[in-house]
Amino acid sequence: MNGSIPVIVTGAAGKMGRQVIQAVAGSNDMILMGAVDRQHLGADAGEVAGVEALEVPITPDLQSLCALVAQEKQAGVLVDFTHPRSVYENIRAAIAYGVYPVVGTTGLSLEQIQALAEFCDKASMGCIIAPNFSIGMVLLQQAAIQASRYFDHVEIIELHHNQKADAPSGTALKTAQMLAEIGKTYNPPQVAETEALPGVRGGLGPEHIRIHSVRLPGLIAHQEVMFGSPGELYTLRHDTSDRSCYMPGVLLSIRKVRQLQQLVYGLEKILD
Amino acid sequence: MNGSIPVIVTGAAGKMGRQVIQAVAGSNDMILMGAVDRQHLGADAGEVAGVEALEVPITPDLQSLCALVAQEKQAGVLVDFTHPRSVYENIRAAIAYGVYPVVGTTGLSLEQIQALAEFCDKASMGCIIAPNFSIGMVLLQQAAIQASRYFDHVEIIELHHNQKADAPSGTALKTAQMLAEIGKTYNPPQVAETEALPGVRGGLGPEHIRIHSVRLPGLIAHQEVMFGSPGELYTLRHDTSDRSCYMPGVLLSIRKVRQLQQLVYGLEKILD
Amino acid sequence: MNGSIPVIVTGAAGKMGRQVIQAVAGSNDMILMGAVDRQHLGADAGEVAGVEALEVPITPDLQSLCALVAQEKQAGVLVDFTHPRSVYENIRAAIAYGVYPVVGTTGLSLEQIQALAEFCDKASMGCIIAPNFSIGMVLLQQAAIQASRYFDHVEIIELHHNQKADAPSGTALKTAQMLAEIGKTYNPPQVAETEALPGVRGGLGPEHIRIHSVRLPGLIAHQEVMFGSPGELYTLRHDTSDRSCYMPGVLLSIRKVRQLQQLVYGLEKILD
Amino acid sequence: MNGSIPVIVTGAAGKMGRQVIQAVAGSNDMILMGAVDRQHLGADAGEVAGVEALEVPITPDLQSLCALVAQEKQAGVLVDFTHPRSVYENIRAAIAYGVYPVVGTTGLSLEQIQALAEFCDKASMGCIIAPNFSIGMVLLQQAAIQASRYFDHVEIIELHHNQKADAPSGTALKTAQMLAEIGKTYNPPQVAETEALPGVRGGLGPEHIRIHSVRLPGLIAHQEVMFGSPGELYTLRHDTSDRSCYMPGVLLSIRKVRQLQQLVYGLEKILD
Repeated sequence: MNGSIPVIVTGAAGKMGRQVIQAVAGSNDMILMGAVDRQHLGADAGEVAGVEALEVPITPDLQSLCALVAQEKQAGVLVDFTHPRSVYENIRAAIAYGVYPVVGTTGLSLEQIQALAEFCDKASMGCIIAPNFSIGMVLLQQAAIQASRYFDHVEIIELHHNQKADAPSGTALKTAQMLAEIGKTYNPPQVAETEALPGVRGGLGPEHIRIHSVRLPGLIAHQEVMFGSPGELYTLRHDTSDRSCYMPGVLLSIRKVRQLQQLVYGLEKILD
Repeated sequence: MNGSIPVIVTGAAGKMGRQVIQAVAGSNDMILMGAVDRQHLGADAGEVAGVEALEVPITPDLQSLCALVAQEKQAGVLVDFTHPRSVYENIRAAIAYGVYPVVGTTGLSLEQIQALAEFCDKASMGCIIAPNFSIGMVLLQQAAIQASRYFDHVEIIELHHNQKADAPSGTALKTAQMLAEIGKTYNPPQVAETEALPGVRGGLGPEHIRIHSVRLPGLIAHQEVMFGSPGELYTLRHDTSDRSCYMPGVLLSIRKVRQLQQLVYGLEKILD
Repeated sequence: MNGSIPVIVTGAAGKMGRQVIQAVAGSNDMILMGAVDRQHLGADAGEVAGVEALEVPITPDLQSLCALVAQEKQAGVLVDFTHPRSVYENIRAAIAYGVYPVVGTTGLSLEQIQALAEFCDKASMGCIIAPNFSIGMVLLQQAAIQASRYFDHVEIIELHHNQKADAPSGTALKTAQMLAEIGKTYNPPQVAETEALPGVRGGLGPEHIRIHSVRLPGLIAHQEVMFGSPGELYTLRHDTSDRSCYMPGVLLSIRKVRQLQQLVYGLEKILD
Repeated sequence: MNGSIPVIVTGAAGKMGRQVIQAVAGSNDMILMGAVDRQHLGADAGEVAGVEALEVPITPDLQSLCALVAQEKQAGVLVDFTHPRSVYENIRAAIAYGVYPVVGTTGLSLEQIQALAEFCDKASMGCIIAPNFSIGMVLLQQAAIQASRYFDHVEIIELHHNQKADAPSGTALKTAQMLAEIGKTYNPPQVAETEALPGVRGGLGPEHIRIHSVRLPGLIAHQEVMFGSPGELYTLRHDTSDRSCYMPGVLLSIRKVRQLQQLVYGLEKILD
């Protein structure tokens, strides 16, 4: 325990927070030092997360916990899966106390991220903000960018359960944007295409990348990027079945953030 | 050879005609008796098809061949993969001579098919007209119809090479129409869906069946029907890589058409 | 409620029993009348199942519940997901009281099933015993049997999480056995095959059907049956992500069992 | 034409040679200067390849062609898809004349490759030897190596037509070897596995990577690498339908080899 990384979890009673507490409790190089939430106040964070009692009560007070962790020998880490309203202040508080933030909460504005980056620079503190902690998805996106240099034709199919209201998925659109950044227009037409049913050829994303969204009960969360050239297809597919898939990325971030002296955005920045 | 089925092929020098001649030449219960085309006149039909010489010269005259075959002990079969302009007359000629037609040529009007059906009835002759001789595709469609009775949610994805101009594929639309005929509306919405990119949710086919068309070089011809219900997915997929895939259906039709006393439309009618 | 089907659930506190109670509570043509288990005695069955209170306490006494249900106007149904030790007596008790059994418990011997069938015959009572209540899987198996008449080449790939110790899965083996019953030997060799790594070509199931078992974390439960012939592939795939997938089959059985006068084995017997 | 790269093709009448001639003829930055084969001597290489006449007769004499190309302003390239017996001498002859070799012929021994590398070093000449010119497959292998650093569980499925005698495919085994080189043992067991059918769990490749080989008519050439961790799957798939898929890799090599001063083995070395 002596060399363990002290970890504070905000949003401790939420779905992601509970997963993080389970993952931290199951890792032998970190230790849960604090759990913040407005619900389940006073309850044991481990029991709320469905693991054994960890003797860490849920409190509403992040500042005091940061002050406590600041006294540890080992530099501490804050893992924040909370809400657009609270995430900015949580990160500032952590950095002020020398606690390194790992942030999965979405909704920070570009201005806020810029301000936090400057705050990190002044303090020479690392901070990792990532919209997606799935290592598999980041690997898929990196491999797709690599393939985009050699293939001129690509379409994306994303498939989700039919409770999902928006289409395309944010992740599929992000993938398309990453492919578009290389600066070429995909899918030069070979024939004059006609659509007998409007929409059948999918949505036209950036740089002519076609995106197709399938919604069915029984699906969970899936993304497929298909590259084609004469005589060959190269397909990258990611299937998510469970929130636990984000934990390897969160744990990797906890281990790496303390070696950084600046804010980085995106899990891909710390995959080497 | 004595009990072999005599076969005439029209469109003998075309892509499908050559395949049929290869398939007939490779079957030990049938024998090629005639080959009709306007091109390669006088050439050996077997050599044109890329198999050994069959001593059947290509001629322009279907009538004479039908008259010849009519003298055989075994009832003969005409296989027609020609052109909308000639197919109707070819079928009439064959029936008039007691030769059973197996027809893959598309473009016959409903009125023409009706007239041919009456002609068959009067002559007590069988005739098989099929828009698709792929047994795998027909099995997929039959299995999809069976599944449609138990699943309320279905989407179709069809994928073809990017030389294909029209979308959706005729076969995918046909599959959707077959599923629609059961008389229910699919995909009752669970949430109010929004499309950030128009068309991303695909084309809206009959009875709310969504169809998605992917076009990429490297693809050939593929169709996927996905049924979903809570906790499970049931997917039927058909991949075609080669025109040879239609031959089992053609050979089956050659063997079965002589047992029929009427015109049937669709390969599924003779799969029992 | 007046015309509702009275339902008793044995194994009410088990994973499947809870799902059944949720499904019955969510159906407007059935009503939970009794819940049997040795655990959670006295607790409300609805609350144990994670739905609202249903005012049905869990009791250990199936006989009394059957006697009670026997007095209802509507014929009742017993749903049994319990244990090989108790299932036989549970079914006998239900039939004796005129309650129709729907049974998902595995482990009954052929002799026991035969004895129960005779007991049903004497009482002119219906009973449904099924090793798999997934309608999608039964549809896949039926479609595969249909395809096996036209394809001579088939391989099965089943994929499960790496907590599963046995391979192949029972369902994959069952599918292979169903395909074997048609009475032909599949996969006639085209070349003399060699295996540079022993086992790479999979396990040799009945009638030369190859089966491949993949085990990885992240997988749940998947089965793929691939039929091939020159130029085409026909693939049937079933993906299960959740125990809820069995509920449509259980509810269908509850509705159909009361119209039967005999024991039937296998969900496929009631899919028409 | 003035700045075009002069290209000589050995094995010009073979399947790959013809493809290369088509690809060179279709590229506006290269020009076919010579075609070597023992068959079709004197015939026009373009006509043999199925494109228009290129006024390049097929000859048996590589040396003379190299001498001719050596007089061009632009440095020339030899593309060799021939035979293990002739490839070594062909490469030596080309280098001796200052013609840069791009080699797809397999069967060179390690000693031969080493000798050729030394020969290239002395001459400060580039040479590219690649067992697989499919850019998609090389991208898949590179992406798999990247993923292997973050995933501990992986299985490979390769699927080919049933004319293929050997299993696993050389490419699948190569992929497994590349994953093994990272120096960890994959697929730590979670349970004690049992095989009710021997081989059902596939072949055990290097470092416990499981490989499964499927053989069916209708398949062409496919490889799938599946990485799993709790809650997620990451799958890389490559489908080949046509020899044309190797041409982008050959053309890229023709353009890059003249910038090299040494022999490189593997297409991945020139993908940057």
